[in-house]
Amino acid sequence: MDDRIAQTPAPPYVTVVFTSVRTGRDDAGYDAMALEMDRLAARQPGYLGVESARDAEGFGITASYWTDEAAAKAWKGVAEHAGAQRLGRERWYAAYRVRVATVTREYGP
Amino acid sequence: MDDRIAQTPAPPYVTVVFTSVRTGRDDAGYDAMALEMDRLAARQPGYLGVESARDAEGFGITASYWTDEAAAKAWKGVAEHAGAQRLGRERWYAAYRVRVATVTREYGP
Repeated sequence: MDDRIAQTPAPPYVTVVFTSVRTGRDDAGYDAMALEMDRLAARQPGYLGVESARDAEGFGITASYWTDEAAAKAWKGVAEHAGAQRLGRERWYAAYRVRVATVTREYGP
Repeated sequence: MDDRIAQTPAPPYVTVVFTSVRTGRDDAGYDAMALEMDRLAARQPGYLGVESARDAEGFGITASYWTDEAAAKAWKGVAEHAGAQRLGRERWYAAYRVRVATVTREYGP
């Protein structure tokens, strides 16, 4: 298995699907912050994993996985993350959408 | 709003999150099939939209949106799509994971 694919447990668990369009502004600052947020997320209670892809046109999808909605919501409220979210809204994302969903089935090859 | 972000209705609805790693084999055939599958999916009952991003290293996430699980499951079984899935397993994907989830909350800027 490729290690970019998250190793999640048997459902149910929660995913937060974050779809975004980058502005292209301040790419170095963005990349550093994204890396730091990945590290910080991985230390949160209830974290199960994350998957992320962004294409050459700046369109990206990040799916993070959590044991339950409370864990996902707690991560949204972590202070450093809240700061990153504010910078995202003001500077880095031309558009975005967040969807919180309960995974009911999972399969692969 | 960027038109690469799906315009979905108020939750609940269903998302199928397909995470995959491309082999890099037969890229022209893959791109043509992916486009055809997008067109075909958009004509299925219960289809709400799709978002897709693949990075330069061949790692991709596609989130398709459906009114309910039955609609998502029906699309999985459509004959042309089943043929594409077989080619995907045999030729195009080094690894993949499919997660079916019920969206409970959605928000944006």
